[in-house]
Amino acid sequence: MAHDIRILTEAELLNMVPLDLALVDVVEAAFVALAGGGVIMPPILSMDLAAVHGEVDVKTAYIPGLDSFALKVSTGFFDNAKRGLPSLGGLMTVFSATTGQVQAVLLDNGFLTDMRTAAAGAVAARHLAPAKVTTAGVIGTGLQARLQMRAAHLVRPFERVLVWGRDMEKAALCASDLADALGIEAEVASDPAILVKRSQLVVTTTPAREPILQADWLHPELHVTAMGSDAPGKCELVPAALMRADLYVADRVSQVERLGELRAAIEAGVWTRGAPPELGAIITGAHHGRQKQSDITIADLTGTGAQDTAIATHVLGLPC
Amino acid sequence: MAHDIRILTEAELLNMVPLDLALVDVVEAAFVALAGGGVIMPPILSMDLAAVHGEVDVKTAYIPGLDSFALKVSTGFFDNAKRGLPSLGGLMTVFSATTGQVQAVLLDNGFLTDMRTAAAGAVAARHLAPAKVTTAGVIGTGLQARLQMRAAHLVRPFERVLVWGRDMEKAALCASDLADALGIEAEVASDPAILVKRSQLVVTTTPAREPILQADWLHPELHVTAMGSDAPGKCELVPAALMRADLYVADRVSQVERLGELRAAIEAGVWTRGAPPELGAIITGAHHGRQKQSDITIADLTGTGAQDTAIATHVLGLPC
Repeated sequence: MAHDIRILTEAELLNMVPLDLALVDVVEAAFVALAGGGVIMPPILSMDLAAVHGEVDVKTAYIPGLDSFALKVSTGFFDNAKRGLPSLGGLMTVFSATTGQVQAVLLDNGFLTDMRTAAAGAVAARHLAPAKVTTAGVIGTGLQARLQMRAAHLVRPFERVLVWGRDMEKAALCASDLADALGIEAEVASDPAILVKRSQLVVTTTPAREPILQADWLHPELHVTAMGSDAPGKCELVPAALMRADLYVADRVSQVERLGELRAAIEAGVWTRGAPPELGAIITGAHHGRQKQSDITIADLTGTGAQDTAIATHVLGLPC
Repeated sequence: MAHDIRILTEAELLNMVPLDLALVDVVEAAFVALAGGGVIMPPILSMDLAAVHGEVDVKTAYIPGLDSFALKVSTGFFDNAKRGLPSLGGLMTVFSATTGQVQAVLLDNGFLTDMRTAAAGAVAARHLAPAKVTTAGVIGTGLQARLQMRAAHLVRPFERVLVWGRDMEKAALCASDLADALGIEAEVASDPAILVKRSQLVVTTTPAREPILQADWLHPELHVTAMGSDAPGKCELVPAALMRADLYVADRVSQVERLGELRAAIEAGVWTRGAPPELGAIITGAHHGRQKQSDITIADLTGTGAQDTAIATHVLGLPC
C-alpha cells in the first residue's frame, strides 16, 4: 500500500471516545450540515437474510468540509444469542473525502453507532426539550436506555430519572446503573403512563412493533424522543401522538417516512401535516422549535449516515 | 474483540490470488448461484461526489452455501492523477454468513475486483465463444485489456491476440505484455473494425461514452464480451449490435438495463426482445447458449456483488 491505514478495535475505541459534549457538538454539526446543501447521503442499503435470521444495513454520507467520509455496516444476526455471541455488530470504514483512499477501519462492533445515536438524542433534547427538565424518563432497559439518559443529562441536567421496561428486573438494573453513572435519583416506574406523566423529557429506546406510548399520555411541557424505530414494521408511539404534538421533528424526512414513527402515522391516514421539519432546520433556526414552555414536542430519530461520517471523522482527529 | 479478523493488504493478495482456472470456476459458481434461488443481492449503493470528482459504489450479495459474504466498496477519484495517486481504489469487508461477524478486511485497492471481472469474462467466453478460437481481439489497452485476454486464454487457448486502442503506443505496450504473458503472437490492429473482422472472440474494455463497435462489423462465428460499461452514460457497442446478435446475454438483467449496453439500446427504442437471458441460465442450461458455430453472441458484464462475495470467500480459503 502507498499509504498507512489505521485499524482501531472496539477496545481501543472504547477508551478513545467518551460520551461528552464534544461528541454532542460533532453530531449536532452533522445535522446542521444536513440542513444545508451539499451533503450527499444515498438511501440506506439493506439486505434481509431471512434464511439465517440476519440483516445488514449500510449507511454513508459525504459532508462538505469534513476531511473524511465513513461507510458504516451494521449487522444483526438474531440466532447469535444461542451461540453466546452478540446479535449486533459491524464496522466503519473511513475514506479520504479528497482522494477516496481508505484512511481507517474502525472495528467497533456497533460501539460508534451506539455513541452517535445517543449524541443525536442529546441534540434533540438540547433544541426541543423544555428549558427546565427535573425528571427524565426512559422506556426500554438496554444499552441505549443508559446511553440516551447519560447523553440527555449533558444538556438537561435533570435531578431524577425514571425507567420502565417490560422486564422489571432489567428496569431495576438500568435504574441502578443510571443512578451510579449520573449521581442522581433513579426509580423504576410501574407503568409507562406514569413515567410519561412525571417526566418533562422522555426517550423511547425499544424495538417495539406495537406502539407503547399513547396519545393521551402526552401533557404540556414535554419532549419525547423516539429512537427505537429504524425499520418498516417498528413503532413506539401511537400514530395519534404525532398529531397531538405541537411540533414533530424528523432526523431525515426521507427516512422517517419509511423507517420511523411517521411511517405508521402515514399508513394509518392520521398524518395530515405534510413534510415535517428536520432537526437540522430547528438547530439553524430555519424552522421554529419549541415556542412555549407548555408545548409538546416529538423528535423521531432513525439514524443517518451523516452521523456516522461525523463521528468517524471525529475519531480520526482524537489522540490515540 | 471476541474473534480474530484477518487484514490482508494489496501486496499480500497479489501473491495469494493467481488468475487461474480455479478462480474462473469460483466466479462461474457465483453465476450459477445467481441463476438459482436464494441469492440476496441488493441494488448497488452509489454516491456521486461531483464536488470532488469522486464516485463511490458499494456492492454486496449473500450466496446460500457460502460461509461468507463480502461488502465491496469501489472508489474513483479522478483528480488523484494530479496528485500522483491512482484514481481507483477500495476494499472488501468479509462477514460470516452465519453470525454476521467481520472475518476479514481485504485492503485490495480494487485488485480483487480486477480479478473477478477478468474471471467473469472467461466464464462468458467458456460458455458463449465458438469452440475454436484462433484469434482473439481486445479493444482498450489498460489493465483489464491484459487481464481479460489472459483469462480468456485459459478457456480458449487462441494462437494470436489483436489489440486496438486510441493510443497506438499504449496498444503496442499492451500487445507486447500479452505476447510475453501468453507466449503467443500479438499484434496492434490499426482499426477496431479490422480487429473484429479477424477475431472469433472480442472483449471491449473501455470507459467509452460513444459506441465503438458497430453492428455491421459483427460476423458469423464471433463472440463479443462488453465489460466496460458499468454506469449510466457509458456504452461500447452501438444499440443495433445487440439486435444483430443471435444471442445477447446479461450478467444481471436489473443491472444491464441501467448500467450496461442494454440501457442505450432500450433508450434508443432498438431493443425489442424483452428481458434477455442471464449468464447463469446459459451455464446451467436453463437457457440455450450458442446454437451453431456461425452464431453471433454478445455478453454484457456490469459486475455483480455475487462475484465479489465469491472471490472474497475464495480468498479466505487460500493458504497465506
